[in-house]
Amino acid sequence: MGANGQITERVFRGDRVAVARAISLIENEHADAVALLKKIYPRTGNAYRIGITGPPGAGKSTISNKLAKYYRKQGKNVGIIAVDPTSPFTGGALLGDRVRMTDVELDQNVFIRSMASRGSLGGLSKKAREAADVLDAAGCEIILMETVGVGQSELDIARAADTTVVVLVPESGDSIQAMKAGLMEIADFFVVNKSDRAGADQAAMSIRTVLGLRKHGEGWMPDVVQTVASEDKGIDIVAEMIGKHRASLESSGELKTKRTERVAERIRDLIAERLRVEFWTAEREQRLAASIKHITEQKETPYDAAEELLKTFKVG
Amino acid sequence: MGANGQITERVFRGDRVAVARAISLIENEHADAVALLKKIYPRTGNAYRIGITGPPGAGKSTISNKLAKYYRKQGKNVGIIAVDPTSPFTGGALLGDRVRMTDVELDQNVFIRSMASRGSLGGLSKKAREAADVLDAAGCEIILMETVGVGQSELDIARAADTTVVVLVPESGDSIQAMKAGLMEIADFFVVNKSDRAGADQAAMSIRTVLGLRKHGEGWMPDVVQTVASEDKGIDIVAEMIGKHRASLESSGELKTKRTERVAERIRDLIAERLRVEFWTAEREQRLAASIKHITEQKETPYDAAEELLKTFKVG
Repeated sequence: MGANGQITERVFRGDRVAVARAISLIENEHADAVALLKKIYPRTGNAYRIGITGPPGAGKSTISNKLAKYYRKQGKNVGIIAVDPTSPFTGGALLGDRVRMTDVELDQNVFIRSMASRGSLGGLSKKAREAADVLDAAGCEIILMETVGVGQSELDIARAADTTVVVLVPESGDSIQAMKAGLMEIADFFVVNKSDRAGADQAAMSIRTVLGLRKHGEGWMPDVVQTVASEDKGIDIVAEMIGKHRASLESSGELKTKRTERVAERIRDLIAERLRVEFWTAEREQRLAASIKHITEQKETPYDAAEELLKTFKVG
Repeated sequence: MGANGQITERVFRGDRVAVARAISLIENEHADAVALLKKIYPRTGNAYRIGITGPPGAGKSTISNKLAKYYRKQGKNVGIIAVDPTSPFTGGALLGDRVRMTDVELDQNVFIRSMASRGSLGGLSKKAREAADVLDAAGCEIILMETVGVGQSELDIARAADTTVVVLVPESGDSIQAMKAGLMEIADFFVVNKSDRAGADQAAMSIRTVLGLRKHGEGWMPDVVQTVASEDKGIDIVAEMIGKHRASLESSGELKTKRTERVAERIRDLIAERLRVEFWTAEREQRLAASIKHITEQKETPYDAAEELLKTFKVG
């Protein structure tokens, strides 16, 4: 705890080495990680968290980097967490870090961290949230959380972010496909990137059409922004849209609600994880192995096995 | 239980109405669902389960439908489960079912069911597996499990399937993007669909190059198949590749291992779910609400709250 205490203080001062080390402790599930997170937690809540998501190849990294530069110019401290939930079987993206643009990385005030899942499925979004806490406590005012994928990972990002931006390209397919991908549900607004390509206006229009079909309550209405991020075109409009959404969430009280729900979610996750660890003792693992043998011989079903195992975990 | 007993018998006879009703019981988490699944379980294990996955717009539905027709011509009973994990916020895909091709649906021997998540995140893949059990017990010899998305949903499909086919299009981007998407990790083989488009051969070649970079153990080597599914081109080669992969899994004993792991996974899931339900009594929900208030006032952290709550759940 001595060294840990030092790290915490250094994180609060925004020390990059300490921040990197703190995130590594979290990533590696080090024994000191929880103590660290407990100390850090009261200093969180100041950063605005922006989720950048969408299908592979849409230019999410470029947009994150350009947005980071934009916010830096405003004098803000920025952090980027690139979540790569995609290589659980081998332990991380093979080329993930190397294909990132490096211009923002040269700026010492932008902290960039890639996180990949290393076999522990489901744990990645938790760790990404905790890494964001570290950046938050270290004084980042803007945290960009970038994820690859269309599916559960987006939902997790949408839950962890204050504003979620979905990045598409003109070729991302017609509106029906976008809806099938469920991106409509989580986007606070859309970006059609690479809008110098053919079909960009039509893509933006068809997304708007589909958005118009949805039932809206009062308040925020998702819209579409067109960008050519590689040429820095439209990044200011993206930032402006984020600002508008933030103002809307703040004035409606929704930001507070969102963040409260996030705390509840986190507590539920912590408890589920602890129960899992407590349940699966070596003895129960042995019983499981025996049950599986019976099940493959068709003498028992998984439902019976689960019930039998649960009987040994009496709660008082 | 009387009516339920009747359903089970009717499922065993392959009665389509009973199959549909059984899946609805599962989907709606009806009180009778577990009893039904217990009865059905001993009759499962005969179907070969094929996962069809890949990014939106790649033509997964078309390939599933054409494969279904192919297997039907061989006289096999076929079921399709289209998993749509993408609209948890509104309760299901808006147009999902309407955009499906309908030609196979005309064949009374292909059972097609779309399943979307209805708010219960994480539960969908479990329900899809259970729906596959129903089809299995109903005499389906081939079950195609189709999912939209790049992320957690694929991993779940890869776990639930005996063979996983990843469908891409020539525009799916270069090999680095495909690797970032983690599809390399879960694919037993790749299909480059819409291969009448420009760039198809290069796309296939770059996937092969990346596959060649990976370390391989002995046994199965993933390859790439090119198709134009809408014109029925290459479907026979896809089916042949599935057959080869199946033969490889069977001769190496890996099929048995995979299925055993699947049983273990299912038991763990059932237990986690039960523990969750048992833990979150009305009283603990109240305590949680009180804790959240303290946390937002920075008087406590989520970690303290989780520990306090866990103390009330004494295990003997």
